[in-house]
Amino acid sequence: MADPVYLDHNATAPVRPEAARAVAEALAEVGNASSVHRFGRGARRRLEDAREAVAALVGARASQVIFTGGGTEANNLALRGLAGARPLVSAGEHDCVLRARDDAESIPLTADGRTDLDALQAMLADDARPAVVSIMLANNETGVLNDVARAAGIAHAAGALVHCDAVQAPGKIAVDVRDLGVDLLTLSAHKIGGPQGVGALVIPGEVSLTKLMGGGGQERGYRPGTENVAAAAGFGVAAEMAGRETLDHVAAWRDRLEREVRTMAPQAVIHGGDAPRLPTTSCIGLPGVNAETQVMALDLAGVAVSSGSACSSGKVHPSHVLKAMGLDEDAAGEAIRVSLGWTSREADVDRFLDAWGKLARRHAPEHAA
Amino acid sequence: MADPVYLDHNATAPVRPEAARAVAEALAEVGNASSVHRFGRGARRRLEDAREAVAALVGARASQVIFTGGGTEANNLALRGLAGARPLVSAGEHDCVLRARDDAESIPLTADGRTDLDALQAMLADDARPAVVSIMLANNETGVLNDVARAAGIAHAAGALVHCDAVQAPGKIAVDVRDLGVDLLTLSAHKIGGPQGVGALVIPGEVSLTKLMGGGGQERGYRPGTENVAAAAGFGVAAEMAGRETLDHVAAWRDRLEREVRTMAPQAVIHGGDAPRLPTTSCIGLPGVNAETQVMALDLAGVAVSSGSACSSGKVHPSHVLKAMGLDEDAAGEAIRVSLGWTSREADVDRFLDAWGKLARRHAPEHAA
Repeated sequence: MADPVYLDHNATAPVRPEAARAVAEALAEVGNASSVHRFGRGARRRLEDAREAVAALVGARASQVIFTGGGTEANNLALRGLAGARPLVSAGEHDCVLRARDDAESIPLTADGRTDLDALQAMLADDARPAVVSIMLANNETGVLNDVARAAGIAHAAGALVHCDAVQAPGKIAVDVRDLGVDLLTLSAHKIGGPQGVGALVIPGEVSLTKLMGGGGQERGYRPGTENVAAAAGFGVAAEMAGRETLDHVAAWRDRLEREVRTMAPQAVIHGGDAPRLPTTSCIGLPGVNAETQVMALDLAGVAVSSGSACSSGKVHPSHVLKAMGLDEDAAGEAIRVSLGWTSREADVDRFLDAWGKLARRHAPEHAA
Repeated sequence: MADPVYLDHNATAPVRPEAARAVAEALAEVGNASSVHRFGRGARRRLEDAREAVAALVGARASQVIFTGGGTEANNLALRGLAGARPLVSAGEHDCVLRARDDAESIPLTADGRTDLDALQAMLADDARPAVVSIMLANNETGVLNDVARAAGIAHAAGALVHCDAVQAPGKIAVDVRDLGVDLLTLSAHKIGGPQGVGALVIPGEVSLTKLMGGGGQERGYRPGTENVAAAAGFGVAAEMAGRETLDHVAAWRDRLEREVRTMAPQAVIHGGDAPRLPTTSCIGLPGVNAETQVMALDLAGVAVSSGSACSSGKVHPSHVLKAMGLDEDAAGEAIRVSLGWTSREADVDRFLDAWGKLARRHAPEHAA
């Protein structure tokens, strides 16, 4: 069999060799970035260079970037850190945003997968308490883009703060925290070709957060623990590279993929296909075939895709994102996500179409009886 | 000048080349360990192999090991995770333990730097509420070892749970969670020659913890976020190597270092020198010379040591550990920590003694006037 094809960039992207090299170089030099001696100062320089690069990726200043142990921690730091604020959380958010707060109120999605900003406006008007609005830039399952700048305008007009989980966007579309106008922005290294285990919370203005953990004064007092210099270095290099590239050319491949899918199986549905989307992501429903069956069949054919997010130990549940878009339980459990990225080639799409075509024919409606 | 000498293993240890290689190998393979396809399963295998190795280091089973983003997070998960329990925390603990809970009650130290277990017994007898006792195995500043097994016996007899921050011990002395008899044990990769940014909480029995962050169901539901496969792989290899070696031979070098220090400067004090200690650590007070001056002078001479823990962005404060041992503010601000480890050679001790001797002579009492 030909080499397996990786079409699950939204779960985790292949690490860029240059980022892996930066990790290796940092691991070869001992140093705690908070130590005052020369080894510590060397580690500190690497860390601060990485901070500059991550800041530059989203138009921020280095002093506005807090490194964390990943996107999940950054999202939790943002939302748990504002424990006094009423949390309004878009229904399409990642589990780690949805579950950051027990008292979260859900902002509905429209049928095309975008956060319903009229509903947000009504929710804010309904209740005068200080609020924090959490709205992702690009949905991990559908690739649908929210109008975050408009959401920020609505929220700020009501005196609310805005947090944006942007982990899926950089390296695929341009991201500038100033254009978005948000107060808190989450990034993750491993979604852009950096290592797992490091993320960032970008805080462009003055926001006072309660930290998640007690300890030392690292990361401007927001995040205790020995700084992860090697991972940050890899993140920095990945950020530089992701900031220089666009994946616009991938949109044409993705569009061809979707056209051919619909030609092969007219009953197939592209969820969120009518909304503005990442150029890289396609969420494809195949009525009557559950997602797990599809993922397994494609895996056997050497094509790696996923069903919803990967974040719960191998179990496949109906997608909460698709349910929030109005799909019933069955339909929400019949969609797979194809996500391309920096390593993708058009031949990967051919491989997918070949394998998916066989799967669709095997499960074609006329065979169902 | 000769190559600088690294005598700050307790801040962070040089990464073992074999561990760095394991990180690099993992970074070269894409995969989210929670993805169900073949790439995900490959990442999962690496992660679980690492878990086996980390468990074996401390006599635990793999199913008892929760990976975290580091020792600080593991300590916070243990103590914040038991929010309903009254926290009794040894006064010599690391900042991340001391500050994990606002309501912590301090168990005093004896003058030789050990946790006062008679005081612990009295504190437990005084108050019938369910408690959690946190007592470190080896102190990071002095190397002093607590009698954790006895502490666990006392705590359990009073119905309390016991958490042990053991990050400084493995690879220097044998650590077995069964012998210690604790309910929760914290480990950190970068203290044993693994990468920064990954640690573990070992939970040998049945303990129900509230997690620090909301999100996916990773790490048996205790710790959401994409698993950090590469760092865990490096941790696993470092654990295997640290478990095979002892640093008993280093004790002789450390003892010689302390003898010669006292010969050169009879006013020097070895803090905790009368207690059982790690073979690798020496905490040396030089009356009349503040720690920052000492660390800087030694750094200029190419010898890296520290003053207390590194964990607060380059600021040097009087040691809370030494104050808890009864030293006054001045004396607690005049001690440096020399910590050897797996890369140390006896020649490093010679280099230290040469540089320290010059420093001591420059600041000798007869020159003070």
